[in-house]
Amino acid sequence: MSPAVFTSITAYLVQQLLLVDAELEGLLPGAGEYPTSIHQAMRHSVFAGGKRLRPILCLEGGRLFKGDEKSLLRLGAALELIHTYSLIHDDLPALDNDDLRRGKPTCHKAFGEATAILAGDALLTLAFEIISAPSSSPQLRLQIVHELARAIGTRDGMVGGQVADLESESQGATASLVDYIHSAKTGAFLRAAVRSGAMEAGARGDDLARVSSYGEKIGLAFQIADDILDVTGTSAELGKSAGKDDQQHKATYPAIHGLEESRRIATRLVAEACDALAPYGERAGRLRQIARFLIERTH
Amino acid sequence: MSPAVFTSITAYLVQQLLLVDAELEGLLPGAGEYPTSIHQAMRHSVFAGGKRLRPILCLEGGRLFKGDEKSLLRLGAALELIHTYSLIHDDLPALDNDDLRRGKPTCHKAFGEATAILAGDALLTLAFEIISAPSSSPQLRLQIVHELARAIGTRDGMVGGQVADLESESQGATASLVDYIHSAKTGAFLRAAVRSGAMEAGARGDDLARVSSYGEKIGLAFQIADDILDVTGTSAELGKSAGKDDQQHKATYPAIHGLEESRRIATRLVAEACDALAPYGERAGRLRQIARFLIERTH
Repeated sequence: MSPAVFTSITAYLVQQLLLVDAELEGLLPGAGEYPTSIHQAMRHSVFAGGKRLRPILCLEGGRLFKGDEKSLLRLGAALELIHTYSLIHDDLPALDNDDLRRGKPTCHKAFGEATAILAGDALLTLAFEIISAPSSSPQLRLQIVHELARAIGTRDGMVGGQVADLESESQGATASLVDYIHSAKTGAFLRAAVRSGAMEAGARGDDLARVSSYGEKIGLAFQIADDILDVTGTSAELGKSAGKDDQQHKATYPAIHGLEESRRIATRLVAEACDALAPYGERAGRLRQIARFLIERTH
Repeated sequence: MSPAVFTSITAYLVQQLLLVDAELEGLLPGAGEYPTSIHQAMRHSVFAGGKRLRPILCLEGGRLFKGDEKSLLRLGAALELIHTYSLIHDDLPALDNDDLRRGKPTCHKAFGEATAILAGDALLTLAFEIISAPSSSPQLRLQIVHELARAIGTRDGMVGGQVADLESESQGATASLVDYIHSAKTGAFLRAAVRSGAMEAGARGDDLARVSSYGEKIGLAFQIADDILDVTGTSAELGKSAGKDDQQHKATYPAIHGLEESRRIATRLVAEACDALAPYGERAGRLRQIARFLIERTH
């Protein structure tokens, strides 16, 4: 990716992020709404500076099939609530025990453990409340709820991946375990993010299969890039403690495959993800740029 | 309630409980399914001996309007997963810090805190996965997802009530705060349980309003009865530490209104709940018996 293209996609992503943030602002209960502590905690973590990757994937997945902007934005924002729930719970002392997230105190550091646990619960619940709001296509919406719930569940979904990840710290990791963890912990939900946008826009059959393939491949590429950044980045760049994966004996691509091979695999996955969208030509330009951006970013 | 009626409704509830348990058995991932620790933890807490009150209310709410038994049973079982999620998280050290629940080790005592947090998350998620499964009436199902998510959220729902409850420990409680906590923490979900069954069976308008009124009143009566039992029951009867509300300066009805007045209020609420169903005559007999049972039980 040329520096000019990189700058252009970065600017585009910032613009999309602002759209998503405005939507989130309207969806979350106000910081002064009773009971205030939980609403403040939810807002603290949602507005701690995320990239809004999942909402943006949802938006672009839907735009590819000319979906309704307003519905896609709302759906995308709900995905970010789910993502934030997972971060809050992952950061808890009993799990990853992180004090910082994106350079700011984690939810339990700022609001205490009890409120953090409940804030995570509440964000997950609010996401389902939003996605299930009255819709002109209730059947599609019900399918989206179902798809998302599966993607973040225990069977090859986010919670399953998190459990496998925790267990791997004591067991040591093999290549297939790392693939399982990555696919379940982050891949399934990223795939569901782009799929849910496409589904909302009415995509089905081959269209949905192509978007799924794209989502699956960038999901893994994204996680490999994350693993690489944990080795090569500084804490200041990452907004969290660098090198933590290694200290915690986490299952990562560089640990199993080495840095160079990990980079090659990520690059190949991104190329395959872009190829999956070949039938759409330039209409899928943004999705291709995002895929390339994911492995070239530095934080 | 005569001893004969009490025995008969108890036997009926046990029979219904067995139906619900069989459904839960089929819905939960097997204890040997990967990753096993979380599935074992989910099963440990779901099968720790609950009364299955929410599923039974859902079933009876749906039967009143001749709903499909199979759909109601599945929906009811999903409600029990949500209830169990809330118990697991409530019991955590950062929240109520309970070692025992229904006479058995709480989830975090048996499986560790990390797994308990994730098991709660997973049960909530699985409940939404189940409720959003393909349905012959997707619009109704979507409404049910929405209704339930609201009932367990932060705005007058379960999590909001839990937060208010935690805050009340340090602030001291007033009558209106106790009413808020009870209504939000347990009332809203109990009301949604009986409503969701009725909705699944196609009830609307006045029918749904009557069921809502019943659910609201028994929800509060149930919680008052729980408060009373915490004062008058023994730990062996309750399967948890008796007198804990008072030690923790919890907001309860007996603390605010005294035991006798609390009993009077609960009895009045149950009578009003039964009256709300008067138009259905004997068809609502079970729902009336359940209402009376709730305040006469000893554990």
